[in-house]
Amino acid sequence: MGRRFDTVSFLTDYGTIDEFVGVVKAVIRDLAPHVAVIDLTHHIAPYDVRAGSLALARSVSYLPSGVVLAVVDPGVGGNRRAIAIEVADGDGVMVGPDNGLLAPAVAMAGGAGRAVVLDHPEFHLPAPGATFAGRDVFAPVVAHLCNGIDLYELGTPVDPDELLPGVVPLPREHEGTMCGEVLWIDHFGNCQLNVGPDDLQGWGARVQVIAGDVTRIAALADHFAGIAPGSIGLVVDSYGMLSLALDRRSAAEELGLAAGDQVTLSPFDGVDQVVASPVTLRTGRALDGR
Amino acid sequence: MGRRFDTVSFLTDYGTIDEFVGVVKAVIRDLAPHVAVIDLTHHIAPYDVRAGSLALARSVSYLPSGVVLAVVDPGVGGNRRAIAIEVADGDGVMVGPDNGLLAPAVAMAGGAGRAVVLDHPEFHLPAPGATFAGRDVFAPVVAHLCNGIDLYELGTPVDPDELLPGVVPLPREHEGTMCGEVLWIDHFGNCQLNVGPDDLQGWGARVQVIAGDVTRIAALADHFAGIAPGSIGLVVDSYGMLSLALDRRSAAEELGLAAGDQVTLSPFDGVDQVVASPVTLRTGRALDGR
Amino acid sequence: MGRRFDTVSFLTDYGTIDEFVGVVKAVIRDLAPHVAVIDLTHHIAPYDVRAGSLALARSVSYLPSGVVLAVVDPGVGGNRRAIAIEVADGDGVMVGPDNGLLAPAVAMAGGAGRAVVLDHPEFHLPAPGATFAGRDVFAPVVAHLCNGIDLYELGTPVDPDELLPGVVPLPREHEGTMCGEVLWIDHFGNCQLNVGPDDLQGWGARVQVIAGDVTRIAALADHFAGIAPGSIGLVVDSYGMLSLALDRRSAAEELGLAAGDQVTLSPFDGVDQVVASPVTLRTGRALDGR
Repeated sequence: MGRRFDTVSFLTDYGTIDEFVGVVKAVIRDLAPHVAVIDLTHHIAPYDVRAGSLALARSVSYLPSGVVLAVVDPGVGGNRRAIAIEVADGDGVMVGPDNGLLAPAVAMAGGAGRAVVLDHPEFHLPAPGATFAGRDVFAPVVAHLCNGIDLYELGTPVDPDELLPGVVPLPREHEGTMCGEVLWIDHFGNCQLNVGPDDLQGWGARVQVIAGDVTRIAALADHFAGIAPGSIGLVVDSYGMLSLALDRRSAAEELGLAAGDQVTLSPFDGVDQVVASPVTLRTGRALDGR
Repeated sequence: MGRRFDTVSFLTDYGTIDEFVGVVKAVIRDLAPHVAVIDLTHHIAPYDVRAGSLALARSVSYLPSGVVLAVVDPGVGGNRRAIAIEVADGDGVMVGPDNGLLAPAVAMAGGAGRAVVLDHPEFHLPAPGATFAGRDVFAPVVAHLCNGIDLYELGTPVDPDELLPGVVPLPREHEGTMCGEVLWIDHFGNCQLNVGPDDLQGWGARVQVIAGDVTRIAALADHFAGIAPGSIGLVVDSYGMLSLALDRRSAAEELGLAAGDQVTLSPFDGVDQVVASPVTLRTGRALDGR
Repeated sequence: MGRRFDTVSFLTDYGTIDEFVGVVKAVIRDLAPHVAVIDLTHHIAPYDVRAGSLALARSVSYLPSGVVLAVVDPGVGGNRRAIAIEVADGDGVMVGPDNGLLAPAVAMAGGAGRAVVLDHPEFHLPAPGATFAGRDVFAPVVAHLCNGIDLYELGTPVDPDELLPGVVPLPREHEGTMCGEVLWIDHFGNCQLNVGPDDLQGWGARVQVIAGDVTRIAALADHFAGIAPGSIGLVVDSYGMLSLALDRRSAAEELGLAAGDQVTLSPFDGVDQVVASPVTLRTGRALDGR
């Protein structure tokens, strides 16, 4: 017998309109009644593996030891593999499809230990038709892991180096400007960039931000409430990355940004003309048909 | 004393914007702190008893033994009755309004055992005004059931045959075609029909689908990822029913389908002209003002 | 050591798209694994302190003893204080920002006992950047409270009278009419007013309702199902307040109401002309461009 676990952290793109999330939890509860399930989110955009992998990576260092179950799985029922990966000397096991979803979180947790392909059907539920992998494969496997079944009983060992890697985009420096992209737009409209404060070392307190057709000057700010009304702030967010933010309003809406959009940052030393002419900027956006 | 339970599976049309779901759980926690509540979904469309009853029926065979609480209750406060029904030799008790919501799930669980009308107010909370039945009637009754209070203490026995039946539509065969309807559209836009694979026995690998003004040829597929790009698939879904599906896209959107819509299936043996002219189809839809 | 708790009731404006709620729960689980968290709602409109405070006040008398964590926090990272307040002789502790969010619930729970400002960073998590107070301050403090750490170890005592009060609007009587406002619009479109049944004592069974440009006659009704089709009902709701309601339809939509809108009630003894001419009313609304 392996180590027992009593917490499952759970992330999907299932939404909560249907009963999918509840049924997965029901199966876990049925097989491993001692387990508590923590929902990270089930509102990853359908099939958006990248967004799921980033949400998991943001969360992982705050999760209690136990099993992480993540399902964003456009290839379900096809030939993609279902996998489980030990991390942190067996303190945690990450379970999900082998499509890069788990990779950034595995890396954040110190890298992969033992890994298996979940190909032992005796630990799955019988499926009436096309597989609902969350219910029929992942939920029972997670429950068995929590009950102390060893990883190697649940499937065929696989070299972690053969698993699909995640894709986390890096910013590029080009002639003194930093070309990054929006990793994540949160509920409040803050736009997390793939740029950290160290990337702007030696820059002043103001930064020119080019996002699509919009050019704005952002002020570096310690926290959201420190951003002047109407101004764009560039804040070191709660994950240590730079976020474009407005005080109590959505920066994503103001700048017309979506996850994955390119953003160019440059040091700004000139007179602050752009901030002084918001009307002009808004006209420009209206002319663009937005 | 009756049998004690430690799991409540919970489905409503309350939504999660308001605190209704949380308050029901708080009342259960207060009276029966040992109980874990599993949320199936709280996003049944308001008052849609049929959709609620289908979601419950899809879930029920995966639920752990315990109490099922389902509340989609357009008649709350009127003269509809609140009921509790034992199933599976007392392994489970289903609690909710007597409006057909529970009926399909009770049937799936093997039929009704003992049943009561929940008319013993000493097991309810005092209501300050119009009854919030989930909070004031159902939550305390569920907690008392979990604490081992016998069903017959909670209300007046009733013959299960006198309870309101559910309405699950059956498909009709007509001159070699199968006239069915959409039972459910899930988060991914897959359209579950009330037609099973046995209903199409002897048909070929391609099926003509008529849905409103749209006629398409669907290919039978084993799983979602097996559907060719741009094609409609007819997949045996994870509940054993046929679902109209596209790979990584919404079949409901493509076909303009909603739950309850009629769909006609016929065997297709001819040349696959319709699939080759998607432009024509889209024009037709535009002319309809959709 | 203080008293231990095993339930946390949790309300925020975080939404559930992001993983914020899950990460807060993960931190609590990590530090205090014996605790169950009940989600009241996480869909308070962003920064809407008033709506959050009302939802909490509606819930509080149904919550089990334990900790209440509420976070609607437009001033996060600024100079607003984080606080914890004992209520009900220590049966409960309310934790959140000092911006009025907790005040109505504290009053409903019998008033404040001991209170502290949460300024002892050794009980917080280290923050990589702008504070995610839910994760870095509130979650660990709540976990420590549940583990029996005394309130006074977690921060500097503060006089509860110095905390920011909540704002609950009172109705005004003016020449026989009652001028109130919409406190809350629920998922079903019912509009709870800040007017109770006692405020209409001596009035008849019908009440004239003026909401913006719309004038309607509402009938007092015992429960939602008792409202005649097409009529507006004025129902004593499940919190003991008067709610404008329609049977199985949204009163908010019918009357064009939003939370905070003014509503004027007058006794109505005349002939019921207005109810008889719904077409005229709808024309009026269309002319208004709504």
